[in-house]
Amino acid sequence: MTVAANMVKVACCQLAPYIGDANQNRTLTEEAIRLAAEQGAKIIVLPELMQSGYVLKDRDEALRVAETQDGPTLSLWMALAQELSLVIVGGFCESLPDQRVANSAALVSTEGLLAVYRKAHLWDREHLIFEPGEQPPPVVETMFGRLSMMICYDLEFPEWVRLPALQGADLLCVPVNWPDALRPSGVSPAEVTRVQANASVNRMFIAACDRCGHERGVDWIGGSVIVDADGYRQSEILDGHQAMTIFSSIDLTEARNKRVSAHNDVHRDRRPSLYAGLIND
Amino acid sequence: MTVAANMVKVACCQLAPYIGDANQNRTLTEEAIRLAAEQGAKIIVLPELMQSGYVLKDRDEALRVAETQDGPTLSLWMALAQELSLVIVGGFCESLPDQRVANSAALVSTEGLLAVYRKAHLWDREHLIFEPGEQPPPVVETMFGRLSMMICYDLEFPEWVRLPALQGADLLCVPVNWPDALRPSGVSPAEVTRVQANASVNRMFIAACDRCGHERGVDWIGGSVIVDADGYRQSEILDGHQAMTIFSSIDLTEARNKRVSAHNDVHRDRRPSLYAGLIND
Repeated sequence: MTVAANMVKVACCQLAPYIGDANQNRTLTEEAIRLAAEQGAKIIVLPELMQSGYVLKDRDEALRVAETQDGPTLSLWMALAQELSLVIVGGFCESLPDQRVANSAALVSTEGLLAVYRKAHLWDREHLIFEPGEQPPPVVETMFGRLSMMICYDLEFPEWVRLPALQGADLLCVPVNWPDALRPSGVSPAEVTRVQANASVNRMFIAACDRCGHERGVDWIGGSVIVDADGYRQSEILDGHQAMTIFSSIDLTEARNKRVSAHNDVHRDRRPSLYAGLIND
Repeated sequence: MTVAANMVKVACCQLAPYIGDANQNRTLTEEAIRLAAEQGAKIIVLPELMQSGYVLKDRDEALRVAETQDGPTLSLWMALAQELSLVIVGGFCESLPDQRVANSAALVSTEGLLAVYRKAHLWDREHLIFEPGEQPPPVVETMFGRLSMMICYDLEFPEWVRLPALQGADLLCVPVNWPDALRPSGVSPAEVTRVQANASVNRMFIAACDRCGHERGVDWIGGSVIVDADGYRQSEILDGHQAMTIFSSIDLTEARNKRVSAHNDVHRDRRPSLYAGLIND
C-alpha cells in the first residue's frame, strides 16, 4: 500500500488529569505522547488545562499550580517534540505577572515553543480565576502544515474560528474540557456538532481533544474528535470514562482548497463589506 | 394536557416544484399550506425558489418565470396568511428592474408582505442568473415572535446568521434547495449540521425547508429540519424523494434567554473588538 507523502497522523490523547498536581500530569502526558508517537502520530493534541486539572477552586489554587512558559511542563513537551519529531499542542495554567493566571495552550515542535495562545472566551467560573486572552489564535507554519489553536468555549464563536482559517490554518488544534450535560439521547453533543460546522464552513481540519474522568463533582463528555475539511468526523470517542487516544491520518493540503463548486470558494464568497454589524459592541 | 400559551407550531413543507411553472407551483403551495394550517401550523416555511423551480437554464428562463412583489404568488401567500392567520416564508424568483432577477424569499402575515430578502451568497450557477442581495437578513416582529430569513448557502456563513441573531431574531426561517452529494453513510449531511451549530451558538431556533424530487439531473437531500435553540433537531425528514410536511411546537421565547451558564451569555460573551479581521476584504 502506498501512502501519499503529505499524509500526517494526528492524535488526540484524551486523559484525566489530577487536579492541582502538575507533576503527575506531566507523567500522564509523557506516557500518552510516547505511545501516540510509537503509533506514528506526528501532531498530538492534549486536553485543556491538562497540566493543572480543570475544576480549580479559586485563583489562589490556580496560582499554586501555574507555570510560566519556561516551566517544567512546556520544557517536557519541547523535549519530547524534539526527541520524537512531533508537534504537540496542550493546555496549561499559565503564570502571568502580578499574580495573574491564564487558561493557555502551547504549541511546541522540534524548533521549540512556537506559540502560546490564551483563551479569549472564558467559561463560567473561569471568569473568577483567569485573565482572558487579548490576541486572536496564532497561525504557525510547522513541518506538517499551518496549525492554529484555540480553547474549548472559543469554538462557540464561529467568528473566532474564522480568523485563523482566513489566515490560512490547515488544522485547528483545540484543547477542550467539555462538561457533560443533559442532551437528547442517541445524538451527537452540540459541542461536537459545532466542531463539524466550524470545519466545514472553512474547509479546515479540526482536532478537538477532550478530557475524561470525574473532578470535584464534574463529569465530562469525553468527546475527542478529529474532523475533516468537509466537517465529517474521522475519529471520535464520546465516552467520558475512557482515557484513550484517537488517530486520524489526514492530508492537510486538502484544506488549501476552499472550492466547493465550480463557482464557489468558502472564503472568497464571504461578503465582508456587509458584515460590519459583527464588530459593533 | 395543557400547552403553554406561548407555544407555536412551525411547519416546513418539503415539496417538489415544477421547473418554470409558477402556476402549478402556486397550487402545490396552496395545498400544502392549507393542510399544514389544518394541523395547527402557524408559521410555515416553503423551499427556496418554490415559485419557479431551481435548475433554471439561464437568466432568460428565470426572467420568464420571475414575479414582482405584487405578483400572483406573493398575493396568494398573503391571502392565505390572512385567511388562516399564518406567517408564511417562501422562496420566489423575483423580477427586478432592468431585466434582472433575484433569488428571494418573502415573509407574509395577516398584515401583508412584511419583508423580502434577497440571497446574498449565491451558489454555483446562480452567479450567472441572479443579482446578489445587498442587505442583511431582516428581523420582523410578528404575532408569534421575531422572525428572520435567509436562503440556503447563506447558512454557510455563520457571520450572516449572527447578524439577525444579534438583532433579536427568535426563529430563522430558511428556504433551501440542498443538492444531494456524496457523504459518509449513516451520518447527518453537513448542511443539517451547520443548521444545528448556527442555532446553538446563537440560542435561536432555525427552520430550514428543503425541496425534494428530481430536476434536470439534480437530486436533493430532502433534509428539511427544525432545530431548537440548543442546536438539537426537533423534527426532520432526510429523504429527497419525500414530499411531506414536518412540524414542531416550540416556545420561541426560549430564544430570548442567551444564558448558557451562571457566567455566560452566548451573545454578550462575544468580543467584537477582537473581530476586526472579519470585515477586512
